Amino acid sequence: MSENGALPLRGKVLTVDTMNANVKKVDYAVRGPIVQRAVQIEKELKEGVKKPFEEVIKANIGDAHAMGQRPITFFRQVMALCTYPQLLDDNKFPEDAKNRARRILQSCGGNSIGAYTTSQGIDCVRHDVANYIQRRDGGIPSDPDNIYLTTGASDGIVTILKLLTAGEGRTRTGVMISIPQYPLYSASIAELGAVQINYYLNEEKCWSLDISELQRSLHAAREHCNPRVLCIINPGNPTGEPIRSFPYKKNSNDIYKGCEFHSFKKVLFEMGPEYSSKVELASFHSTSKCYMGECGFRGGYMEVINMDPEVKAQLTKLVSVRLCPPAPGQALMDLVVNSPQPGEPSYQTFMKERTAVLSALAEKAKLTEEILNTVPGISCNPVQGAMYSFPRITLPERAINEAKAKGQAPDMFYCMKLLEETGICLVPGSGFGQREGTYHFRMTILPPTDKLKIMLNKLKEFHQKFTQQYS
Amino acid sequence: MSENGALPLRGKVLTVDTMNANVKKVDYAVRGPIVQRAVQIEKELKEGVKKPFEEVIKANIGDAHAMGQRPITFFRQVMALCTYPQLLDDNKFPEDAKNRARRILQSCGGNSIGAYTTSQGIDCVRHDVANYIQRRDGGIPSDPDNIYLTTGASDGIVTILKLLTAGEGRTRTGVMISIPQYPLYSASIAELGAVQINYYLNEEKCWSLDISELQRSLHAAREHCNPRVLCIINPGNPTGEPIRSFPYKKNSNDIYKGCEFHSFKKVLFEMGPEYSSKVELASFHSTSKCYMGECGFRGGYMEVINMDPEVKAQLTKLVSVRLCPPAPGQALMDLVVNSPQPGEPSYQTFMKERTAVLSALAEKAKLTEEILNTVPGISCNPVQGAMYSFPRITLPERAINEAKAKGQAPDMFYCMKLLEETGICLVPGSGFGQREGTYHFRMTILPPTDKLKIMLNKLKEFHQKFTQQYS
Ligand SMILES: Cc1ncc(COP(=O)(O)O)c(C=O)c1O
Ligand SMILES: Cc1ncc(COP(=O)(O)O)c(C=O)c1O
Repeated sequence: MSENGALPLRGKVLTVDTMNANVKKVDYAVRGPIVQRAVQIEKELKEGVKKPFEEVIKANIGDAHAMGQRPITFFRQVMALCTYPQLLDDNKFPEDAKNRARRILQSCGGNSIGAYTTSQGIDCVRHDVANYIQRRDGGIPSDPDNIYLTTGASDGIVTILKLLTAGEGRTRTGVMISIPQYPLYSASIAELGAVQINYYLNEEKCWSLDISELQRSLHAAREHCNPRVLCIINPGNPTGEPIRSFPYKKNSNDIYKGCEFHSFKKVLFEMGPEYSSKVELASFHSTSKCYMGECGFRGGYMEVINMDPEVKAQLTKLVSVRLCPPAPGQALMDLVVNSPQPGEPSYQTFMKERTAVLSALAEKAKLTEEILNTVPGISCNPVQGAMYSFPRITLPERAINEAKAKGQAPDMFYCMKLLEETGICLVPGSGFGQREGTYHFRMTILPPTDKLKIMLNKLKEFHQKFTQQYS
Repeated sequence: MSENGALPLRGKVLTVDTMNANVKKVDYAVRGPIVQRAVQIEKELKEGVKKPFEEVIKANIGDAHAMGQRPITFFRQVMALCTYPQLLDDNKFPEDAKNRARRILQSCGGNSIGAYTTSQGIDCVRHDVANYIQRRDGGIPSDPDNIYLTTGASDGIVTILKLLTAGEGRTRTGVMISIPQYPLYSASIAELGAVQINYYLNEEKCWSLDISELQRSLHAAREHCNPRVLCIINPGNPTGEPIRSFPYKKNSNDIYKGCEFHSFKKVLFEMGPEYSSKVELASFHSTSKCYMGECGFRGGYMEVINMDPEVKAQLTKLVSVRLCPPAPGQALMDLVVNSPQPGEPSYQTFMKERTAVLSALAEKAKLTEEILNTVPGISCNPVQGAMYSFPRITLPERAINEAKAKGQAPDMFYCMKLLEETGICLVPGSGFGQREGTYHFRMTILPPTDKLKIMLNKLKEFHQKFTQQYS
């Protein structure tokens, strides 16, 4: 500041050289350069620019509604009732929807979803979440005081990682993440200045987790940091079994067939009190995935068990700074854990809609695996439980060299070309991590079946052409 | 991890000694111990415990709906339509509400508010925000590319502070905040490990900002850190004028009478291109305050001007990690900046509801000032523009000593006693900062007028009794 108010100003206060260095290190492939280019292409198409395709198909992100999936009627009815309670007098809405809405509103300040909620989340929602977890885990108790509602799963994950980040140099917190990972993990680790520790999933065994690989990665990490957190994305890593003795775990489920999900908490309890009363576990869930796909509402919860009470008080304080997660997302989370029951008026429609989504997903998972595996140079594991596939691609030497000459990861080069030529938007495997020298792309299976078929066949054609061109 | 899977586990991985040290330093008075005790008392009352009062009156936080304020009908109609688009066929809803909903949905992926939005926020909403700012500032251009939608104002404020935090020791980023402040600022500064720089508002001149005090605080700060950010809460600091030559500013408005608000951006433009083309300014707004008070939706926006383009790219990347702000909050923000216009069917009702809220606030502001100033030992500045008062209280020496003996801030001691004896929940001034040796409390003026009167009179009575008791 000048003393007399009129001296010329210096240059920018905030430049890439003077900004937060950790933020610069953050990378988030799911919304990275390829997606930015996709958005640009969409604009060009709208402006009438000629392309060899009519539309961009975005298979880069698990965004079911954007891909045409319809919301679950019951959920949206209750949300409309919570939003505009005058509708409670409207007989177009079923009684069970009205009851849910009344109950949620009664738990809100001034009976309005427009009031701040408590920092940990609406009381009755946390109770419903705890009941849901207890049912899921065959009666193993869940305490509403251990439930924190969040702004999507992302928010909860970042908050827990933040609590855990401490130390300097060799004592800095290390966070073990699976490779391939969901890039929120690497991004948050970078932002917090924690240390990323990679453990590789076994592609040959359907992306399973090898205990020996966990040990390798842990021992290597101990040389340069303090490994304190093990992150697991579940399902996708088929069992909690081989990782019994790790100190801290997290999970998150995007399952579409209930049968495959093993709760880590349940596994801990089956291992006996030595584990169930000691292992500190935080698990995450959200409204974004599963059959509902309600990403925009940013609903989510986490359950923390065996957390030191003083640390829990710190966690509660930390989340209170941002006041509360969005109340509509909290309400929606409630409906997911407290969905229509047999005998309630909405039950049949709800089940019909839910089953339709889940069977479509199962069908699309199979379709994806089958079509991709007919392509020489593409190999795709069965898509289990999640809405993503992560097929491996063989790239010709010449393509790899051309990419490197351009300073691009070879699979980025591949995906960019795919986007420009076909309008298909995938994320290169390099954004998720992969073993050195292997190449992949990540693709959601969410486009409607007919579009998915077209997309898979275009992809096949492109891959064959690409392989020829660079051989 | 043990090599053979069965060694006994050590103690907790995460303890207050091993957790993130910056998080421990965070303090957030607005939801601190006094509020936790208030929640407890509410539970006790429900359980039938006898108290000298019937209910807890929470005047600790600006939460209008919790205090009984009704939502604006038009806003909730559009939100219900966006949530459950089947209602678009219902002729109970006015055409302008339907048009707004259709326009928002068309800008959402798959026409669903359940889709992720772009990281910066829904396109049409950002355009509407830019238009709104441009109108507000008498035509000074606003670019939708400079608008970022946020999860409440809180989210935007933390994000900008995060970008700006860098350096170590004497080069560490210093952030100048007004005292009294909104404790989100001190909490975020602590969490980020930045340096808090206090500048004191002039209580004698109605909490105005003295240029000499800014200079004092800046010069003092330069001895031990690198001051890079000036935070201003506007209104509350009556004008941008005296602070012309500061490098970086931010504002946020909770105004209830349009006439008092001076846009900092406008002031910069009036100062000429030397300033308007150079000063880096981020300003924040949210759906939580003003006449709408829609806190639960967590809607908000920020406008950044003169930000280095490379830094802006980093900002966009950073916000993309959490995918997007809640879509319902974004939609609601849209309605605030694009409210019913003369000639539209909802205009009259909207204006009636809006005016009713604003006049009630003006009346309550006056009431608060008047009643409190009749109490010897309480002095209250006029409540201008915001929904809070911050009266100064004189505490008897004996009370101060008793508090100190208990290890409590004297105004915390006072507020705790007030809560236990009357059920009134205020926040001690020490949570917001105040000049050494002065004591205050912060009180919102939001309770309904009749309740506010009762509360103010109870407060008066309590203060007199308290003063007597400790004299
Ligand atoms: C494994 C995993 N975790 C977390 C998230 C983030 O989800 P949310 O929308 O709940 O923040 C995703 C989203 O794609 C995910 O795939
Ligand atoms: C000055 C100020 N800034 C920001 C906020 C946070 O508001 P939001 O709900 O938009 O996050 C508040 C809330 O009380 C406030 O008073």
